[in-house]
Amino acid sequence: MFTRIGIFGKYSGIESWESIDKLLQHLISSNKTVMLDDASCHDFPVERYGVEVIERQQLAQQIDLAVVVGGDGTFLDVARSIVDSETPILGINLGRLGFLADISPKEMLTTLDDILAGNYECEERNLIHVKISKDENELFNEFAFNDVVIHKTDSPRMIEFETFVDGRFLNSQRSDGMIINTPTGSTAYALSAGGPILDPRLDVMSLVSINPHTMSTRPYVVPGNSVVEVRPHENCAGKAQVICDGQLSFQISLGYSTTVKRHKKMVKMLHPKGHDHFELLRAKLHWGDKLS
Amino acid sequence: MFTRIGIFGKYSGIESWESIDKLLQHLISSNKTVMLDDASCHDFPVERYGVEVIERQQLAQQIDLAVVVGGDGTFLDVARSIVDSETPILGINLGRLGFLADISPKEMLTTLDDILAGNYECEERNLIHVKISKDENELFNEFAFNDVVIHKTDSPRMIEFETFVDGRFLNSQRSDGMIINTPTGSTAYALSAGGPILDPRLDVMSLVSINPHTMSTRPYVVPGNSVVEVRPHENCAGKAQVICDGQLSFQISLGYSTTVKRHKKMVKMLHPKGHDHFELLRAKLHWGDKLS
Amino acid sequence: MFTRIGIFGKYSGIESWESIDKLLQHLISSNKTVMLDDASCHDFPVERYGVEVIERQQLAQQIDLAVVVGGDGTFLDVARSIVDSETPILGINLGRLGFLADISPKEMLTTLDDILAGNYECEERNLIHVKISKDENELFNEFAFNDVVIHKTDSPRMIEFETFVDGRFLNSQRSDGMIINTPTGSTAYALSAGGPILDPRLDVMSLVSINPHTMSTRPYVVPGNSVVEVRPHENCAGKAQVICDGQLSFQISLGYSTTVKRHKKMVKMLHPKGHDHFELLRAKLHWGDKLS
Amino acid sequence: MFTRIGIFGKYSGIESWESIDKLLQHLISSNKTVMLDDASCHDFPVERYGVEVIERQQLAQQIDLAVVVGGDGTFLDVARSIVDSETPILGINLGRLGFLADISPKEMLTTLDDILAGNYECEERNLIHVKISKDENELFNEFAFNDVVIHKTDSPRMIEFETFVDGRFLNSQRSDGMIINTPTGSTAYALSAGGPILDPRLDVMSLVSINPHTMSTRPYVVPGNSVVEVRPHENCAGKAQVICDGQLSFQISLGYSTTVKRHKKMVKMLHPKGHDHFELLRAKLHWGDKLS
Repeated sequence: MFTRIGIFGKYSGIESWESIDKLLQHLISSNKTVMLDDASCHDFPVERYGVEVIERQQLAQQIDLAVVVGGDGTFLDVARSIVDSETPILGINLGRLGFLADISPKEMLTTLDDILAGNYECEERNLIHVKISKDENELFNEFAFNDVVIHKTDSPRMIEFETFVDGRFLNSQRSDGMIINTPTGSTAYALSAGGPILDPRLDVMSLVSINPHTMSTRPYVVPGNSVVEVRPHENCAGKAQVICDGQLSFQISLGYSTTVKRHKKMVKMLHPKGHDHFELLRAKLHWGDKLS
Repeated sequence: MFTRIGIFGKYSGIESWESIDKLLQHLISSNKTVMLDDASCHDFPVERYGVEVIERQQLAQQIDLAVVVGGDGTFLDVARSIVDSETPILGINLGRLGFLADISPKEMLTTLDDILAGNYECEERNLIHVKISKDENELFNEFAFNDVVIHKTDSPRMIEFETFVDGRFLNSQRSDGMIINTPTGSTAYALSAGGPILDPRLDVMSLVSINPHTMSTRPYVVPGNSVVEVRPHENCAGKAQVICDGQLSFQISLGYSTTVKRHKKMVKMLHPKGHDHFELLRAKLHWGDKLS
Repeated sequence: MFTRIGIFGKYSGIESWESIDKLLQHLISSNKTVMLDDASCHDFPVERYGVEVIERQQLAQQIDLAVVVGGDGTFLDVARSIVDSETPILGINLGRLGFLADISPKEMLTTLDDILAGNYECEERNLIHVKISKDENELFNEFAFNDVVIHKTDSPRMIEFETFVDGRFLNSQRSDGMIINTPTGSTAYALSAGGPILDPRLDVMSLVSINPHTMSTRPYVVPGNSVVEVRPHENCAGKAQVICDGQLSFQISLGYSTTVKRHKKMVKMLHPKGHDHFELLRAKLHWGDKLS
Repeated sequence: MFTRIGIFGKYSGIESWESIDKLLQHLISSNKTVMLDDASCHDFPVERYGVEVIERQQLAQQIDLAVVVGGDGTFLDVARSIVDSETPILGINLGRLGFLADISPKEMLTTLDDILAGNYECEERNLIHVKISKDENELFNEFAFNDVVIHKTDSPRMIEFETFVDGRFLNSQRSDGMIINTPTGSTAYALSAGGPILDPRLDVMSLVSINPHTMSTRPYVVPGNSVVEVRPHENCAGKAQVICDGQLSFQISLGYSTTVKRHKKMVKMLHPKGHDHFELLRAKLHWGDKLS
């Protein structure tokens, strides 16, 4: 049973206040202990409700359910930062249906009541761990729930790099970059770059080249327990950056090694009973519904 | 240790006799018991060698190693027909490097000696099982090692069908058809149709639509233990056929259900020690090698 | 000024009668001479209206405006069969907006009045001419307004063929076939096969390979006055057919030559003043409209 | 007849000196007047040959043939800078066959003799003109022979912009950017981004979106005399740059307008008699040659 609930909003997002207000009133009147995320809700007028605003890492340790009010971007950010606490997460969107924030504001309270009453499904999803090092010094150590993108930076020229899977050389390529994505990320940027859609139950990663110079380059799907390493090649004229979930970035160049592998802990997403991922795909991708 | 070896050739393929001759002489002089597949080698002049030609299913039961001399097409055919015996298979190509028949005639004997001496790697690969039924009558029951293709037949018009995964409705589509492929088949027809390359270690299937009318349709990768069902839709004007590995086919229309799932037994492929699948990909797909 | 108007309906399409009825009443009361196409309207109860039903080729000679009531398929059929008469064509759709039949039943009468009053734009579009011959005998001679498709027929195997442009060898390919399309056809089957969208004002043809085996094969756009010739290659195991607009087809095999070139006359499409092709593209392809 | 010949090398490219040396000796002994481009050959030891090194714009006015020694990048740069002089250009590659520098060092002298003897074909190709303005001030005014690319700059986020063709709104899109390319550029970056190959005789431009968010976005081919305008949308969070031929770039953001149209003068490329563009395509794209 969920008794201690943390609320996470959209960064500097006054637009989420109305929903947070409703949520708070509802949860307080249901005798739940509610706490707010300092990082995203520090401006929220908490005094009215008598709830605490707590630093995110501490908050994650004290709650048994995280409710994210925002869009998929907000959900990605929260998922990365609280994954180690193994707290299950529920996503409420602010208007537009998301792949992650898949509960509408309209049905928010009834869905929440259902879930608090134990009527929910818990889905576990892979999240990946990225390390960047140079000369054996670790310079960057982050998570990505959707994808890690190696991309040329402001140079107009393509970059050249080599990819290794489990220590074995896969290929060299000249391209605008490469996406390494989870099943969750397969409906995000990877989809624009021509990657396949991966069922969220899969324990795999997809390597999707971005505008590759060699025309027989294709998305490559590897086992979830693979270690993928990318190294700029010495022919590489351009500069590159590594980007996690479109939110965190780091400049790299010749001599840097970027290593990606599945994190040992998974993101726990809560859905109402009977949740249907295919329905979400059909709705978001405008796939034809059942023909008449 | 391998002591009883079966030889499988190319159908009506006199072109494989030279290699089979060399193989036979070598194996006989190595004191192995050699038998030939009746289906593919019944014209071979066996009397010269004093070896038996045996019906394929019986043969599969009596050998502990299958050597296929032909191309990938020959390998597919043998893999499907002997999978239940769990006999490991080795593929020798007749000229052009294959994804399955990956040993050249030149290195055939030394590779074989190595393998007979125990220096080999055994790789297990998924194979799929297809059933077609109508009104609860089962009409077709076959295997596919590469892919099952539902394709419009001679009509110029697209077909319309519905796809279900594990009993849940995935989508309806109008298209030229759909490919359901194993990782092995991901470098075959599915690649021409825009599918991703799947690492052979993966336990997954890929659903790749062929020229879909809806432009947001994309390859969808499902867990290997999924049951995929395809049913022509009542709007479906055209006729369709189901094709296994481009070799076996069956006509379907409204009222037919095609069900695809992983077979319980796997194909065992033998490779020389140090075999590198990525090297094969780079060679076959003309990927850039390591940039100098 | 348009005074003699021909009405063309959907083949055996009782569903178009309601619209045809309205049209007839309106045109008769506007003192126009109206005639019906025998091929598509022979079942229509003409006696009520006192109008003639005439054989299509004769009809085309006697009218100065053709009104098509149906969908894009009906429009294609009429455009091919009356192109030589140079009669302008107007397309009314039966429900779903088409690329060709782009006037809705709702706005049919007011649009027609506008056009009869001289407020229209006339757009000329390329149409192509296909000839198939063997041993210097011409066996097939037809038009295509959207596309000519060379496609494997019921065989599961790809076909192999050679393409020549203006007598010069372009390439050999193994594929499911090839589409040769006009700008009009660029939003039809060619789009499903990965072809570009061609502005309707362009005098070009597009060659779009269908699931080509060679991964660097790409749509190729040639000048409108090119002569494109396709010949099955002697390696070609499968059988093929040539299909015009998805409506007319002809079986070919080794020894047949298919020649495609622009027809000397163009299709004249009428639109209401201010017609915007881009608006049609945005609506039909669900492109984002102007971001708020 | 060509009597005054200008030599253009690779920027700071000592690697082109050997070829330039051979060229100079050959042309001088053929009694031609030879001049060198100051921008690319100022370090070349001209004193040995008694030839002049001249500022590029002046040089272009004084010669009747331009010989480029380098790669496609060098050719692009020269083509842009001398297009207004209407001097025909010949491209010699330094090792690797190019789409533009299509004469190998080996056949350089014999090809040149042929051309000087009048045995050549002259091909005219479109080149585009780019202007960037803000608040009616023109800030950038350059040419592009391959392509103009609007691309997000170092931001990880997509950009949003609106495209207008001949003053009419085409669409809004969220993507990594868009390529506007000539037929010449259709085998360059546009090919990596999924654009069609355009016959070099065509008078068209191609609009190719780079990783568009809307999956029904497709390359769009417009008439060569179109005016294409791109404007960042006010939702556009990221910064963008405009890049000509991968060589010249300019930062833009909200309020900037980028206008692209065909330049009134064309690039004149010289080829040996019997030059076959399709052969070049087959060689560069590894298309299957005529199946034996």
